[in-house]
Amino acid sequence: MDYREYQEYREYFEKLIETKELKELKEVLEEINVVDLAEIIEDMEDKTMLMVFRLIPKLQGSEVFSYMETYNQLRIINSITDLELKGIIDELDFDDRIDIIDEMPANVVTKVLAQSTPEERKLINEFLRYPEDSAGSMMTIEYVRLKPEMTVQDAMEYIKKTGMDKETIYTCYVENEYKMLLGFVSLRTIVVSDADLFIRDIMEEDVMFVTTTDDRELVAEQFMKYGYIALPVVDLEHRLCGIITFDDIMDVVEEEATEDFHKMAAINPSDDEYLSQTPWQLAKNRIPWLLILMVSATLTSGIIDNFSYIISQYLILTMFIPMITDTGGNTGSQSSTIIIRAMATGEVTLSDVFRVMFKEMGVGLIVGLVLALVNFGRMMIFTDAGLVISGLVSFTVLITVVLSKLLGAALPMLAKRVHIDPAIMASALITTIIDSLVLVIYFLLAGWLLPLGGA
Amino acid sequence: MDYREYQEYREYFEKLIETKELKELKEVLEEINVVDLAEIIEDMEDKTMLMVFRLIPKLQGSEVFSYMETYNQLRIINSITDLELKGIIDELDFDDRIDIIDEMPANVVTKVLAQSTPEERKLINEFLRYPEDSAGSMMTIEYVRLKPEMTVQDAMEYIKKTGMDKETIYTCYVENEYKMLLGFVSLRTIVVSDADLFIRDIMEEDVMFVTTTDDRELVAEQFMKYGYIALPVVDLEHRLCGIITFDDIMDVVEEEATEDFHKMAAINPSDDEYLSQTPWQLAKNRIPWLLILMVSATLTSGIIDNFSYIISQYLILTMFIPMITDTGGNTGSQSSTIIIRAMATGEVTLSDVFRVMFKEMGVGLIVGLVLALVNFGRMMIFTDAGLVISGLVSFTVLITVVLSKLLGAALPMLAKRVHIDPAIMASALITTIIDSLVLVIYFLLAGWLLPLGGA
Repeated sequence: MDYREYQEYREYFEKLIETKELKELKEVLEEINVVDLAEIIEDMEDKTMLMVFRLIPKLQGSEVFSYMETYNQLRIINSITDLELKGIIDELDFDDRIDIIDEMPANVVTKVLAQSTPEERKLINEFLRYPEDSAGSMMTIEYVRLKPEMTVQDAMEYIKKTGMDKETIYTCYVENEYKMLLGFVSLRTIVVSDADLFIRDIMEEDVMFVTTTDDRELVAEQFMKYGYIALPVVDLEHRLCGIITFDDIMDVVEEEATEDFHKMAAINPSDDEYLSQTPWQLAKNRIPWLLILMVSATLTSGIIDNFSYIISQYLILTMFIPMITDTGGNTGSQSSTIIIRAMATGEVTLSDVFRVMFKEMGVGLIVGLVLALVNFGRMMIFTDAGLVISGLVSFTVLITVVLSKLLGAALPMLAKRVHIDPAIMASALITTIIDSLVLVIYFLLAGWLLPLGGA
Repeated sequence: MDYREYQEYREYFEKLIETKELKELKEVLEEINVVDLAEIIEDMEDKTMLMVFRLIPKLQGSEVFSYMETYNQLRIINSITDLELKGIIDELDFDDRIDIIDEMPANVVTKVLAQSTPEERKLINEFLRYPEDSAGSMMTIEYVRLKPEMTVQDAMEYIKKTGMDKETIYTCYVENEYKMLLGFVSLRTIVVSDADLFIRDIMEEDVMFVTTTDDRELVAEQFMKYGYIALPVVDLEHRLCGIITFDDIMDVVEEEATEDFHKMAAINPSDDEYLSQTPWQLAKNRIPWLLILMVSATLTSGIIDNFSYIISQYLILTMFIPMITDTGGNTGSQSSTIIIRAMATGEVTLSDVFRVMFKEMGVGLIVGLVLALVNFGRMMIFTDAGLVISGLVSFTVLITVVLSKLLGAALPMLAKRVHIDPAIMASALITTIIDSLVLVIYFLLAGWLLPLGGA
């Protein structure tokens, strides 16, 4: 569905409510995909939203609820009875329940916990202790546990009985009596195997796993690399604690990329959605780096000031400052972006540093020569700068490009080497460093090439 | 496995080959995950690589082959016999076979096609006709097709018999006699349903699908939104042509993000990996935008030239040019990055344009005031610029920030509106536009505020 279709449904629902055709509304609600339904009702007014939400069948209602933004979940929680809340919470998948509790204000959390049994409360509290963005905080406990001594037929019957409540039944995990992870077996293997075989004989013992404290970025890397539907999460004693499924990982891959985009644009990343943040919150994440960059850019003022005896005699030199610094910034950020991204996807590692520097040196020479030649031609034909100034500016462009390529590639790798996030070393910071360097080179060359009167 | 572990395996294998302990090598090979095995042998020399590859059991060997880089696949193809090649190709999943043929040089394609039956050749040629990056070019034909009149038991028996050759058996598709897509049924539903129910009674008829010509970006959006394991691909007559599974989509999500990173850094995106490209190829993708940006940056030269009568009297003004233009570029690219990314993930749509502009106006005022005040304080305390010049520069900073925020947000949305890729409107291009604007404002303000002698 696209935005227009959502809008049409919204209006259709409002019409049905107005004309009190609730039976028809109920029927339509049952047919719509829960993801779409969440999007449709999120933009409704409180009263209409609540009315529609209450008409959704209970099981489906919990699902719709889990797909809504935190802000809209709160709108619903604040208007329904405690009994209704219990109904929703009970039907939620365990990992969704944790996510919701994690993001709600304290008074709502109390309300939710009050609706849970003591055992559930204990479990929820345990989950809330896992570090943010860790495998433990993402996992679900609703998976299929098999015993090695079960036969294929036992396993099938067990899955048949309990399968509907599990997050996935397509990968089943085999535990011993101490809950230690012994192996896994895919439903595919179970389905195609003879009924009287033992699980211990068909299970795969070489099982990839992550630990509860592993960062979600590492978890996502494992999924991307091996293409699994689910991965088991174990604690330090190798006891199986939960599983993570591929659908949660898709969001992580996208969110991690967004985080890198923001960091590379000198923005402190935030977990909140753009449209739900106030200008104050947005400004707070953008000001720190801008201040750092602005203040460090005053280095360039000092450099220009230092060479003012040259500028005062050759005012024409100032004309080309923005062009030279922009070209440096652009070429540098090409290299830094490529290297930062290649390191993020695992394509380039620190052991490739010499291959990378060698390649960027080559690219810098080629690109630099092309840009310098075009610039020289342009200046000779379209300006009256003359041979010496045109040559000076073009030669500066060549050096700028080579230097920017090398620095743009080297700085992110250096950052990674000393365990700083390479994304911080992106265009903005590199631009500031390169600006200062190329201005010094520009004026040094000028002082050397141009005849100067007494300063 | 990390790089060090791969290296250890590589050395271990070489030792086993040297000491001719091939039986032990064979045993170790069988235990290693195919993804890891591909990475281990890729960095070996031709001879060792081929030797190890030939020791891998046939079925596993095809899988290892499918995980290797094109460049290394070619190294193998060029050293093995036609019969061996046929063995590998026969065992490959259909979509992997298409991918490989798609990327091989013509002489190898002929070799591969010669090893296929006439029907296979026809099918391969059909697949090669789908546009690049379309759903058709990504799909596989190895899926489970059920008939509506089958019972659950029939279906289970059919899956048991054919399931091992399918890409996935977890979502099965129901077709009528004309191959039209009627619905789908998950293996979970089949497993928990009574054996004598008909597929037509348990299948889900409201099925999401994509068409063969849909772009992979759209396909990825559907997967991200609904969290499916697989999506069916139909042609214009709604006949089922193939399916796409989630594991292929994870790569797409990552590749699309990489493409946007590159575009936003003014690089023409390429499908090839960084390390496998020559400096010439890399330079070719970077030069076009750098040239465009460099030539358009000469606009700033014209502007500075135009206001040279002011500069000649207030040389100090040149000192702050890089700081002002850098700040404009940085603030603008913050906004453009946020908006481009939010549109890519679907969080912000064109219908949000007024909310976005309003928000960025607020952010711009807050950020602008903070930066302007800090700059004013810094200039008054640490420089001898004086009240008027400090005020002029700081006020220019304020205007620059507000303008950059508004342009940074507006230009990508405008681009999207006229169906240009918003990523093109990223930092580099916006920097050039903003540079010119703020220089004009800076000098106009200067001419208005500062007492000027006769020009």
